[in-house]
Amino acid sequence: MGHLTENNEALVMRVRRLVGQLQAVERALVSGEDCAKTLHLAAAVRGAINGLIDELIADHVKAHVSAPDLTQAERDEGAEALIAAIRRYAK
Amino acid sequence: MGHLTENNEALVMRVRRLVGQLQAVERALVSGEDCAKTLHLAAAVRGAINGLIDELIADHVKAHVSAPDLTQAERDEGAEALIAAIRRYAK
Amino acid sequence: MGHLTENNEALVMRVRRLVGQLQAVERALVSGEDCAKTLHLAAAVRGAINGLIDELIADHVKAHVSAPDLTQAERDEGAEALIAAIRRYAK
Amino acid sequence: MGHLTENNEALVMRVRRLVGQLQAVERALVSGEDCAKTLHLAAAVRGAINGLIDELIADHVKAHVSAPDLTQAERDEGAEALIAAIRRYAK
Repeated sequence: MGHLTENNEALVMRVRRLVGQLQAVERALVSGEDCAKTLHLAAAVRGAINGLIDELIADHVKAHVSAPDLTQAERDEGAEALIAAIRRYAK
Repeated sequence: MGHLTENNEALVMRVRRLVGQLQAVERALVSGEDCAKTLHLAAAVRGAINGLIDELIADHVKAHVSAPDLTQAERDEGAEALIAAIRRYAK
Repeated sequence: MGHLTENNEALVMRVRRLVGQLQAVERALVSGEDCAKTLHLAAAVRGAINGLIDELIADHVKAHVSAPDLTQAERDEGAEALIAAIRRYAK
Repeated sequence: MGHLTENNEALVMRVRRLVGQLQAVERALVSGEDCAKTLHLAAAVRGAINGLIDELIADHVKAHVSAPDLTQAERDEGAEALIAAIRRYAK
Protein backbone atom coordinates (compact mmCIF):
# COMPACT_ATOMS: atom_id res chain seq x y z
CA MET A 1 0.00 0.00 0.00
CA GLY A 2 1.33 3.40 -0.95
CA HIS A 3 1.35 6.59 1.07
CA LEU A 4 -0.63 8.59 -1.45
CA THR A 5 -4.11 8.28 0.00
CA GLU A 6 -3.75 11.04 2.61
CA ASN A 7 -2.63 13.74 0.29
CA ASN A 8 -4.22 12.49 -2.85
CA GLU A 9 -7.19 14.76 -3.32
CA ALA A 10 -4.83 17.64 -4.11
CA LEU A 11 -2.87 15.42 -6.49
CA VAL A 12 -6.03 14.22 -8.22
CA MET A 13 -7.01 17.88 -8.73
CA ARG A 14 -3.62 18.50 -10.36
CA VAL A 15 -4.11 15.58 -12.70
CA ARG A 16 -7.54 16.89 -13.71
CA ARG A 17 -6.13 20.33 -14.43
CA LEU A 18 -3.53 18.59 -16.59
CA VAL A 19 -6.33 16.90 -18.56
CA GLY A 20 -7.83 20.35 -19.12
CA GLN A 21 -4.46 21.66 -20.35
CA LEU A 22 -4.19 18.74 -22.79
CA GLN A 23 -7.67 19.50 -24.10
CA ALA A 24 -6.42 23.04 -24.85
CA VAL A 25 -3.57 21.47 -26.86
CA GLU A 26 -6.12 19.34 -28.74
CA ARG A 27 -8.29 22.37 -29.51
CA ALA A 28 -5.22 24.24 -30.80
CA LEU A 29 -4.38 21.32 -33.11
CA VAL A 30 -7.94 20.92 -34.39
CA SER A 31 -8.44 24.63 -35.07
CA GLY A 32 -5.11 24.91 -36.95
CA GLU A 33 -3.76 27.31 -34.35
CA ASP A 34 -0.33 28.85 -34.93
CA CYS A 35 2.42 26.34 -34.11
CA ALA A 36 4.19 28.69 -31.66
CA LYS A 37 0.95 28.89 -29.65
CA THR A 38 0.45 25.10 -29.74
CA LEU A 39 4.04 24.50 -28.64
CA HIS A 40 3.55 26.93 -25.77
CA LEU A 41 0.48 25.02 -24.58
CA ALA A 42 2.30 21.68 -24.85
CA ALA A 43 5.27 23.08 -22.90
CA ALA A 44 2.84 24.16 -20.15
CA VAL A 45 1.66 20.55 -19.91
CA ARG A 46 5.24 19.40 -19.49
CA GLY A 47 5.82 21.99 -16.76
CA ALA A 48 2.72 20.74 -14.95
CA ILE A 49 3.67 17.06 -15.20
CA ASN A 50 7.17 17.89 -13.93
CA GLY A 51 5.53 19.62 -10.97
CA LEU A 52 3.36 16.56 -10.32
CA ILE A 53 6.39 14.24 -10.43
CA ASP A 54 8.24 16.49 -7.94
CA GLU A 55 5.18 16.35 -5.68
CA LEU A 56 5.02 12.54 -5.84
CA ILE A 57 8.72 12.34 -4.92
CA ALA A 58 8.23 14.84 -2.05
CA ASP A 59 5.34 12.72 -0.71
CA HIS A 60 7.55 9.64 -0.86
CA VAL A 61 10.29 11.42 1.11
CA LYS A 62 7.88 12.41 3.87
CA ALA A 63 6.06 9.07 4.11
CA HIS A 64 8.89 6.60 3.58
CA VAL A 65 12.16 8.31 4.52
CA SER A 66 11.75 11.07 7.08
CA ALA A 67 8.56 10.09 8.96
CA PRO A 68 9.30 9.71 12.69
CA ASP A 69 7.58 6.35 13.15
CA LEU A 70 9.65 4.34 10.67
CA THR A 71 12.08 1.62 11.73
CA GLN A 72 15.63 2.14 10.47
CA ALA A 73 15.15 -0.78 8.07
CA GLU A 74 12.04 0.86 6.58
CA ARG A 75 13.85 4.18 6.38
CA ASP A 76 16.83 2.63 4.55
CA GLU A 77 14.49 0.89 2.14
CA GLY A 78 12.58 4.14 1.53
CA ALA A 79 15.87 5.95 0.90
CA GLU A 80 17.01 3.32 -1.62
CA ALA A 81 13.65 3.51 -3.46
CA LEU A 82 13.91 7.29 -3.47
CA ILE A 83 17.44 7.32 -4.88
CA ALA A 84 16.39 4.84 -7.57
CA ALA A 85 13.41 7.07 -8.44
CA ILE A 86 15.61 10.18 -8.66
CA ARG A 87 18.06 8.37 -10.97
CA ARG A 88 15.20 7.17 -13.16
CA TYR A 89 12.79 10.12 -13.19
CA ALA A 90 14.63 13.28 -12.17
CA LYS A 91 15.38 14.47 -15.67
CA MET B 1 -2.36 30.30 -39.80
CA GLY B 2 -0.29 27.43 -38.57
CA HIS B 3 0.99 24.42 -40.48
CA LEU B 4 -0.56 21.88 -38.16
CA THR B 5 -3.76 21.06 -40.01
CA GLU B 6 -2.24 18.59 -42.50
CA ASN B 7 -0.61 16.36 -40.01
CA ASN B 8 -2.84 17.02 -37.09
CA GLU B 9 -5.00 13.93 -36.95
CA ALA B 10 -1.97 11.91 -35.82
CA LEU B 11 -1.11 14.59 -33.26
CA VAL B 12 -4.67 14.71 -31.93
CA MET B 13 -4.52 10.92 -31.47
CA ARG B 14 -1.30 11.35 -29.44
CA VAL B 15 -2.97 13.95 -27.24
CA ARG B 16 -5.91 11.61 -26.62
CA ARG B 17 -3.58 8.76 -25.68
CA LEU B 18 -1.95 11.20 -23.26
CA VAL B 19 -5.34 11.90 -21.66
CA GLY B 20 -5.73 8.13 -21.22
CA GLN B 21 -2.30 7.91 -19.58
CA LEU B 22 -3.24 10.72 -17.18
CA GLN B 23 -6.42 8.88 -16.27
CA ALA B 24 -4.24 5.91 -15.31
CA VAL B 25 -2.29 8.24 -12.99
CA GLU B 26 -5.57 9.43 -11.48
CA ARG B 27 -6.77 5.85 -10.90
CA ALA B 28 -3.44 5.01 -9.24
CA LEU B 29 -3.84 8.00 -6.89
CA VAL B 30 -7.46 7.25 -6.06
CA SER B 31 -6.85 3.56 -5.37
CA GLY B 32 -3.85 4.26 -3.12
CA GLU B 33 -1.50 2.48 -5.51
CA ASP B 34 2.13 2.08 -4.50
CA CYS B 35 4.04 5.34 -5.02
CA ALA B 36 6.72 3.72 -7.20
CA LYS B 37 3.98 2.56 -9.57
CA THR B 38 2.31 5.99 -9.61
CA LEU B 39 5.64 7.70 -10.29
CA HIS B 40 6.28 5.30 -13.14
CA LEU B 41 2.92 6.18 -14.73
CA ALA B 42 3.56 9.92 -14.30
CA ALA B 43 7.03 9.56 -15.86
CA ALA B 44 5.41 7.84 -18.87
CA VAL B 45 3.18 10.90 -19.29
CA ARG B 46 6.25 13.12 -19.31
CA GLY B 47 7.92 10.90 -21.92
CA ALA B 48 4.82 11.14 -24.10
CA ILE B 49 4.53 14.93 -23.81
CA ASN B 50 8.24 15.26 -24.64
CA GLY B 51 7.60 13.16 -27.74
CA LEU B 52 4.67 15.39 -28.70
CA ILE B 53 6.78 18.55 -28.28
CA ASP B 54 9.53 17.04 -30.49
CA GLU B 55 6.87 16.25 -33.10
CA LEU B 56 5.51 19.81 -33.03
CA ILE B 57 9.03 21.17 -33.52
CA ALA B 58 9.70 18.70 -36.37
CA ASP B 59 6.49 19.83 -38.10
CA HIS B 60 7.57 23.43 -37.74
CA VAL B 61 10.96 22.65 -39.34
CA LYS B 62 9.33 21.02 -42.34
CA ALA B 63 6.59 23.61 -42.86
CA HIS B 64 8.42 26.83 -42.05
CA VAL B 65 12.16 26.26 -42.54
CA SER B 66 12.95 23.56 -45.08
CA ALA B 67 9.84 23.51 -47.36
CA PRO B 68 10.87 24.15 -50.98
CA ASP B 69 8.27 26.83 -51.73
CA LEU B 70 9.28 29.35 -49.05
CA THR B 71 10.86 32.72 -49.86
CA GLN B 72 14.22 33.30 -48.19
CA ALA B 73 12.57 35.89 -45.92
CA GLU B 74 9.95 33.34 -44.79
CA ARG B 75 12.68 30.74 -44.29
CA ASP B 76 14.78 33.11 -42.16
CA GLU B 77 11.73 33.99 -40.08
CA GLY B 78 10.89 30.29 -39.63
CA ALA B 79 14.48 29.58 -38.57
CA GLU B 80 14.42 32.40 -36.00
CA ALA B 81 11.11 31.14 -34.56
CA LEU B 82 12.54 27.62 -34.44
CA ILE B 83 15.71 28.67 -32.63
CA ALA B 84 13.63 30.65 -30.13
CA ALA B 85 11.40 27.58 -29.56
CA ILE B 86 14.42 25.32 -29.02
CA ARG B 87 15.89 27.77 -26.47
CA ARG B 88 12.56 27.96 -24.67
CA TYR B 89 11.21 24.42 -24.87
CA ALA B 90 14.10 22.03 -25.54
CA LYS B 91 14.68 21.03 -21.94
CA MET C 1 33.38 19.16 -42.69
CA GLY C 2 31.09 20.81 -40.17
CA HIS C 3 29.81 24.37 -40.12
CA LEU C 4 31.26 25.21 -36.75
CA THR C 5 34.50 26.90 -37.76
CA GLU C 6 32.99 30.34 -38.45
CA ASN C 7 31.33 30.77 -35.15
CA ASN C 8 33.52 28.58 -33.07
CA GLU C 9 35.65 31.02 -31.14
CA ALA C 10 32.58 32.06 -29.14
CA LEU C 11 31.66 28.43 -28.56
CA VAL C 12 35.20 27.55 -27.47
CA MET C 13 35.01 30.41 -24.95
CA ARG C 14 31.75 28.95 -23.59
CA VAL C 15 33.39 25.53 -23.21
CA ARG C 16 36.30 27.10 -21.32
CA ARG C 17 33.95 28.91 -18.97
CA LEU C 18 32.26 25.56 -18.38
CA VAL C 19 35.64 24.05 -17.39
CA GLY C 20 35.99 26.90 -14.88
CA GLN C 21 32.53 26.17 -13.48
CA LEU C 22 33.45 22.50 -13.08
CA GLN C 23 36.60 23.47 -11.22
CA ALA C 24 34.37 25.39 -8.79
CA VAL C 25 32.38 22.18 -8.25
CA GLU C 26 35.64 20.31 -7.61
CA ARG C 27 36.80 22.92 -5.08
CA ALA C 28 33.44 22.68 -3.29
CA LEU C 29 33.81 18.90 -3.06
CA VAL C 30 37.41 19.03 -1.86
CA SER C 31 36.76 21.67 0.78
CA GLY C 32 33.72 19.83 2.17
CA GLU C 33 31.42 22.67 1.17
CA ASP C 34 27.76 22.45 2.15
CA CYS C 35 25.88 20.09 -0.16
CA ALA C 36 23.23 22.67 -1.10
CA LYS C 37 26.02 24.95 -2.32
CA THR C 38 27.70 22.14 -4.26
CA LEU C 39 24.40 21.14 -5.87
CA HIS C 40 23.81 24.74 -6.88
CA LEU C 41 27.21 24.89 -8.60
CA ALA C 42 26.59 21.58 -10.39
CA ALA C 43 23.15 22.78 -11.54
CA ALA C 44 24.81 25.89 -13.00
CA VAL C 45 27.07 23.60 -15.05
CA ARG C 46 24.00 21.81 -16.39
CA GLY C 47 22.37 25.12 -17.31
CA ALA C 48 25.52 26.13 -19.17
CA ILE C 49 25.83 22.85 -21.08
CA ASN C 50 22.13 23.07 -22.04
CA GLY C 51 22.83 26.55 -23.38
CA LEU C 52 25.80 25.24 -25.38
CA ILE C 53 23.68 22.42 -26.87
CA ASP C 54 20.98 24.92 -27.89
CA GLU C 55 23.69 27.04 -29.54
CA LEU C 56 25.07 24.05 -31.47
CA ILE C 57 21.56 23.23 -32.72
CA ALA C 58 20.94 26.89 -33.68
CA ASP C 59 24.21 26.90 -35.67
CA HIS C 60 23.12 23.75 -37.44
CA VAL C 61 19.77 25.32 -38.39
CA LYS C 62 21.47 28.37 -39.91
CA ALA C 63 24.24 26.48 -41.73
CA HIS C 64 22.39 23.40 -42.94
CA VAL C 65 18.66 24.18 -43.11
CA SER C 66 17.91 27.86 -43.70
CA ALA C 67 21.06 29.14 -45.46
CA PRO C 68 20.11 30.67 -48.83
CA ASP C 69 22.76 28.87 -50.91
CA LEU C 70 21.69 25.28 -50.16
CA THR C 71 20.16 22.99 -52.77
CA GLN C 72 16.77 21.57 -51.79
CA ALA C 73 18.39 18.15 -51.35
CA GLU C 74 20.95 19.59 -48.91
CA ARG C 75 18.19 21.47 -47.10
CA ASP C 76 16.07 18.33 -46.73
CA GLU C 77 19.08 16.40 -45.44
CA GLY C 78 19.89 19.19 -42.98
CA ALA C 79 16.27 19.21 -41.77
CA GLU C 80 16.29 15.43 -41.24
CA ALA C 81 19.57 15.63 -39.28
CA LEU C 82 18.12 18.46 -37.21
CA ILE C 83 14.91 16.60 -36.38
CA ALA C 84 16.96 13.53 -35.39
CA ALA C 85 19.15 15.73 -33.16
CA ILE C 86 16.11 17.31 -31.48
CA ARG C 87 14.60 13.86 -30.81
CA ARG C 88 17.90 12.65 -29.36
CA TYR C 89 19.23 15.67 -27.49
CA ALA C 90 16.38 18.06 -26.76
CA LYS C 91 15.72 16.80 -23.28
CA MET D 1 29.68 21.66 7.15
CA GLY D 2 28.53 19.39 4.33
CA HIS D 3 28.47 15.62 4.20
CA LEU D 4 30.51 15.38 1.05
CA THR D 5 33.97 14.77 2.47
CA GLU D 6 33.57 11.01 3.04
CA ASN D 7 32.51 10.11 -0.41
CA ASN D 8 34.16 12.90 -2.27
CA GLU D 9 37.14 11.26 -3.88
CA ALA D 10 34.79 9.36 -6.22
CA LEU D 11 32.88 12.55 -6.95
CA VAL D 12 36.07 14.51 -7.63
CA MET D 13 37.08 11.79 -10.11
CA ARG D 14 33.73 12.20 -11.88
CA VAL D 15 34.25 15.96 -12.12
CA ARG D 16 37.71 15.42 -13.63
CA ARG D 17 36.32 13.00 -16.21
CA LEU D 18 33.76 15.68 -17.05
CA VAL D 19 36.59 18.17 -17.65
CA GLY D 20 38.12 15.62 -20.05
CA GLN D 21 34.78 15.28 -21.86
CA LEU D 22 34.56 19.06 -22.22
CA GLN D 23 38.05 19.13 -23.68
CA ALA D 24 36.85 16.66 -26.32
CA VAL D 25 34.03 19.13 -27.15
CA GLU D 26 36.60 21.92 -27.43
CA ARG D 27 38.81 19.85 -29.76
CA ALA D 28 35.77 19.05 -31.93
CA LEU D 29 34.97 22.78 -32.20
CA VAL D 30 38.55 23.80 -32.94
CA SER D 31 39.08 21.13 -35.59
CA GLY D 32 35.80 21.96 -37.39
CA GLU D 33 34.41 18.52 -36.61
CA ASP D 34 31.00 17.62 -38.04
CA CYS D 35 28.22 19.24 -36.00
CA ALA D 36 26.41 15.94 -35.34
CA LYS D 37 29.59 14.62 -33.73
CA THR D 38 30.08 17.78 -31.66
CA LEU D 39 26.47 17.68 -30.49
CA HIS D 40 26.91 14.05 -29.49
CA LEU D 41 29.94 14.93 -27.36
CA ALA D 42 28.11 17.85 -25.73
CA ALA D 43 25.10 15.61 -24.98
CA ALA D 44 27.47 13.16 -23.27
CA VAL D 45 28.64 15.99 -21.01
CA ARG D 46 25.04 16.72 -20.09
CA GLY D 47 24.43 13.05 -19.31
CA ALA D 48 27.48 13.04 -17.05
CA ILE D 49 26.52 16.21 -15.19
CA ASN D 50 23.00 14.83 -14.68
CA GLY D 51 24.58 11.71 -13.20
CA LEU D 52 26.72 13.85 -10.88
CA ILE D 53 23.69 15.85 -9.71
CA ASP D 54 21.81 12.59 -8.98
CA GLU D 55 24.81 11.40 -6.98
CA LEU D 56 24.95 14.63 -4.95
CA ILE D 57 21.25 14.29 -4.15
CA ALA D 58 21.69 10.61 -3.20
CA ASP D 59 24.53 11.57 -0.84
CA HIS D 60 22.32 14.19 0.73
CA VAL D 61 19.53 11.64 1.29
CA LYS D 62 21.89 9.25 3.05
CA ALA D 63 23.69 11.85 5.18
CA HIS D 64 20.86 14.20 6.08
CA VAL D 65 17.57 12.30 5.81
CA SER D 66 17.95 8.56 6.37
CA ALA D 67 21.09 8.30 8.52
CA PRO D 68 20.28 6.47 11.80
CA ASP D 69 21.97 8.97 14.14
CA LEU D 70 19.94 12.06 13.20
CA THR D 71 17.48 13.70 15.56
CA GLN D 72 13.96 14.01 14.17
CA ALA D 73 14.46 17.78 13.87
CA GLU D 74 17.62 17.26 11.77
CA ARG D 75 15.83 14.65 9.66
CA ASP D 76 12.89 16.97 8.98
CA GLU D 77 15.26 19.77 8.04
CA GLY D 78 17.21 17.42 5.74
CA ALA D 79 13.93 16.30 4.10
CA GLU D 80 12.84 19.91 3.52
CA ALA D 81 16.23 20.78 1.96
CA LEU D 82 15.98 17.67 -0.21
CA ILE D 83 12.48 18.47 -1.45
CA ALA D 84 13.57 22.04 -2.23
CA ALA D 85 16.59 20.68 -4.15
CA ILE D 86 14.40 18.27 -6.16
CA ARG D 87 11.99 21.08 -7.07
CA ARG D 88 14.89 23.28 -8.13
CA TYR D 89 17.31 20.86 -9.76
CA ALA D 90 15.44 17.72 -10.79
CA LYS D 91 14.85 18.75 -14.36
